[in-house]
Amino acid sequence: MSRHRPGRLYGIGVGPGDPELLTLKALRLLRAAPVVAYPAPEFGDSFARGIVAGWLDARQREIAIRFPMRPGPPPAEVYERAAAAIAAELDIGRDVALLCQGDPLFYGSFVGVFALLADRYPVEIVPGVSSLGAGAAAAEVPLVTRDEVLAVIPATLAEGELQRRLAAAEVAVVVKLGRHLVKVQRVLARLGRLAEARYVERASLPGQRVAPLAEIAEAPYFSLALVRGRAPDGR
Amino acid sequence: MSRHRPGRLYGIGVGPGDPELLTLKALRLLRAAPVVAYPAPEFGDSFARGIVAGWLDARQREIAIRFPMRPGPPPAEVYERAAAAIAAELDIGRDVALLCQGDPLFYGSFVGVFALLADRYPVEIVPGVSSLGAGAAAAEVPLVTRDEVLAVIPATLAEGELQRRLAAAEVAVVVKLGRHLVKVQRVLARLGRLAEARYVERASLPGQRVAPLAEIAEAPYFSLALVRGRAPDGR
Repeated sequence: MSRHRPGRLYGIGVGPGDPELLTLKALRLLRAAPVVAYPAPEFGDSFARGIVAGWLDARQREIAIRFPMRPGPPPAEVYERAAAAIAAELDIGRDVALLCQGDPLFYGSFVGVFALLADRYPVEIVPGVSSLGAGAAAAEVPLVTRDEVLAVIPATLAEGELQRRLAAAEVAVVVKLGRHLVKVQRVLARLGRLAEARYVERASLPGQRVAPLAEIAEAPYFSLALVRGRAPDGR
Repeated sequence: MSRHRPGRLYGIGVGPGDPELLTLKALRLLRAAPVVAYPAPEFGDSFARGIVAGWLDARQREIAIRFPMRPGPPPAEVYERAAAAIAAELDIGRDVALLCQGDPLFYGSFVGVFALLADRYPVEIVPGVSSLGAGAAAAEVPLVTRDEVLAVIPATLAEGELQRRLAAAEVAVVVKLGRHLVKVQRVLARLGRLAEARYVERASLPGQRVAPLAEIAEAPYFSLALVRGRAPDGR
């Protein structure tokens, strides 16, 4: 029998990378939380933690949730172990701030963790600036305007499926480029649309890079391509 | 010949409605700007101004850009007049913060204004939390995960086109419901997908409302429907 009221789990979007793109709400909850959890690679530093590093306090307990570095969806144990570590803190009445790059519900790594805990603990999701808006701002092009339909397409799809989706989309953002870059370039070239695709890497960060997609030879996982024909207003 | 260096135009995303969902960058630039411009209805208060009202200073000059209250795209004069009023401030060296609900490049009203001014003045877009992330957080459902494709579809499309788009989308967000609500309900019912559609109104605001879309009889313009089959992880 617990002597405590359980803690609350906050899924906090910390934005695309620039620490100044944190929201006031994210900052308030992050600073108040006794425990901060975040995704991290198998070895090395967490990108999400890096975004808010300037606001962390040495007295906050930290939980690094380490993801194996191989392609494909991570094994279920990663989520189960993370959920157990977070639940142990919630059980003794501590609030936990679970950091998510960009927006927590837009391709967030932790939907699986929320699903495991939402029935037993109070959970609140704090939306953040996603890579979509940051990517368009970096490229200085509208994402969508007026009656346009936007398709957000992961580059991880099989080539035929990717082509079918891109052929049907007037305005598309291809996310998660990484090792799928050449496949995306090939599909867009086949559709006659490679020339209209802009590449954005590290949007909002000092190393931000914007270039024609056709010129790119290597892309990190967190990069995207904006594909749109003639922009509105003739631009 | 101008005696001043021209001012800089900031297109600032102020988020979906909760003043705490403003970013630190938006707040810094907003408070530093001698001139603040924002969209407003023909009569009455500006929603975007309302979000940041607590941070405004009486010494800041304000420009309300009034949109006519009839359906369809606003006449070009609205943008031309707004651009001229903003240019007059930039010409005398004043920075202008142009407020945009949500994210400036995601169905933003001011893409036309940026296009008119970007060649003559320095323009910077500050991304904000969009209604997509805020709507999903309110409804407590993932927006997209893993390899899913997301379609963002304006309810303003003609019925046949809307149906074609929704039939092709596993996960869709229908934005700008307003007076198009019944049409959207009819199309989803015809596709056998009305039961899986969640309605979100005033996401992140005190009057926030989440309900099955099928139960809604009237919707404001800033409302959306999340349409997704079985959510991941069986939820």
